Amino acid sequence: MGCNDLDATRSAKTLLSADLRGIDSHGVARMSGYVRLWEAKRIKGDANYKVVYETPSTAVVDGDAGLGLAVAPFAMEVAIAKARHAGTGWVSVRNSNHFGIAGIHAMMALEHDMIGIAMTNASALVAPTFSIERMLGTNPIAVAIPALHQPPFVADFATTTAANGKLELLQRKNEDAPLGWVQDKEGGYSTDANELKKGGSLLPLGSDREHGSHKGYALGSIVDIFSAMLGGASYGPWAPPFPAYVPMPQNMPGQGLGHFFGAMRIDAFRPAEEFKEHMDNWISRFRNAKPAPGHARVLIPGDPEREMETVRRKDGIPIVGSVVAELLAVGERFGVEVPVGI
Amino acid sequence: MGCNDLDATRSAKTLLSADLRGIDSHGVARMSGYVRLWEAKRIKGDANYKVVYETPSTAVVDGDAGLGLAVAPFAMEVAIAKARHAGTGWVSVRNSNHFGIAGIHAMMALEHDMIGIAMTNASALVAPTFSIERMLGTNPIAVAIPALHQPPFVADFATTTAANGKLELLQRKNEDAPLGWVQDKEGGYSTDANELKKGGSLLPLGSDREHGSHKGYALGSIVDIFSAMLGGASYGPWAPPFPAYVPMPQNMPGQGLGHFFGAMRIDAFRPAEEFKEHMDNWISRFRNAKPAPGHARVLIPGDPEREMETVRRKDGIPIVGSVVAELLAVGERFGVEVPVGI
Repeated sequence: MGCNDLDATRSAKTLLSADLRGIDSHGVARMSGYVRLWEAKRIKGDANYKVVYETPSTAVVDGDAGLGLAVAPFAMEVAIAKARHAGTGWVSVRNSNHFGIAGIHAMMALEHDMIGIAMTNASALVAPTFSIERMLGTNPIAVAIPALHQPPFVADFATTTAANGKLELLQRKNEDAPLGWVQDKEGGYSTDANELKKGGSLLPLGSDREHGSHKGYALGSIVDIFSAMLGGASYGPWAPPFPAYVPMPQNMPGQGLGHFFGAMRIDAFRPAEEFKEHMDNWISRFRNAKPAPGHARVLIPGDPEREMETVRRKDGIPIVGSVVAELLAVGERFGVEVPVGI
Repeated sequence: MGCNDLDATRSAKTLLSADLRGIDSHGVARMSGYVRLWEAKRIKGDANYKVVYETPSTAVVDGDAGLGLAVAPFAMEVAIAKARHAGTGWVSVRNSNHFGIAGIHAMMALEHDMIGIAMTNASALVAPTFSIERMLGTNPIAVAIPALHQPPFVADFATTTAANGKLELLQRKNEDAPLGWVQDKEGGYSTDANELKKGGSLLPLGSDREHGSHKGYALGSIVDIFSAMLGGASYGPWAPPFPAYVPMPQNMPGQGLGHFFGAMRIDAFRPAEEFKEHMDNWISRFRNAKPAPGHARVLIPGDPEREMETVRRKDGIPIVGSVVAELLAVGERFGVEVPVGI
């Protein structure tokens, strides 16, 4: 696709990290989708992304329509460099594309004894509370916080009740969705995992007003505004779609997708060692919280993904047949041998 | 209570703002609670709160066990001053107390063309996903974002499915709570609005695992860590309680309650006027999203509180009899005439 070595490496690392951590929906399964966006000239392989504006603790990055998978690590590096000097660094990115899993970008801060934050807007699938119109993406938030001997705290979640990937899993298994994940096009409750194809929408975290969906709607909105509006990307219902066959929105008020990254140096607040000892204490205390009947233990955000990574580093990453076929086709398209079965 | 004029004014303003905006649970109804904490020597009226550590974009404030109602506006002013110079400002506060409504502190940033952020930890009432132990407070998050001709976007919400104040309303009316707000002490579903008095707990936003409670749990945890652990306050199950009759936790790992404030100068990213025009566009577009059947319109975060403020500025603030009685008692206690009925 014309990526230089650095961008190819950054992008491969971002995709593989998703598969390693068990987020199969955001790993190599999306490879062919990125290629189709490149073929549709919506992604540039040789993008010249760069900082276009900055203050001591902030920057705006223009992604030049590059692969979000590569633009995101660059922008996070800028945030980390800002934090080194000013205590914190905050970077809004415009003119980008889908950046893979949010968590892996936030985790870049950990080795620097910093807290990392990553978020992105996405194409509209989610209806605000009291609405039947798709206005927001699943707009994830990731926060990574270092500990000392304990593994880090890594939260990474869509601001909807369920991520779209969970619906896709149910579709493949021909199963119903729990009530509260989607609504039909009239705003009625639905358990149909295919509801989005029929004009329905995903619901904000909280599902309905009585259970706090206005909070999920507010969170998704904050992600949209921080990610897209601060830096000049397209927002709300005008965010560009991931599937290359979906037409681009008309009258886009900004350029491409937007992301927002933050890095906070721990010792801009208190000595890092001291903080990390307290994080160890926090994590052990929460891990030892009294479990509910039927549950063996209480999890810390990041536990499931880390445990999956341990398994997959040992046993390998299973890839479903349809994705293998897509990877083989992409390999043929570019004359690259795909080592299936290894 | 020995407050100087500035602190008395700041505290009164914080409390009255809650009543004006319709958050009666956080207004003058809490006045007597603060007095009891002062009588129990958990709050100092003449606290000498100050910045104890700083970098260009960060600071730590020691609240000196002062009224959170006064410490919070001070800390937010520090964040705003930092943002003026470094683009953004981030302040963690230790050794503080209950700070009233989060939203009013975040809103201080608006007149400076900044985005304001406020959060606080609180005494433990919430069980993590898969647990029956109270480990986190209702830990609210507030984000205020300026617009041009439209009113500002102001999100202010507890990271639980329902705030504790909502349960208290139901208790007074002797009504049941919706399923998903609380669990009983065994972790079972419950609609008993008095469940917290029986050893039960509030549920994180999302209610149960299937509906994303692990996301609400992660959010509440992030608020706890940013608010309390960065600056050296007490965290998780060791956060100090609001009712003065509840014993303080043993072996507290930090000092008092913690808060976290942020201010981001809009023009540290792009010209403020341009951003605010886009906010107007965002707000109008969302306000005009297609409403669900049975709903007249889609709300923007902050609409209900602003509309309530308009009504109450015109018609006055109704105060229930029990609160009037408490205010009269406080007035008598301090030799201050309470102008009931005015």
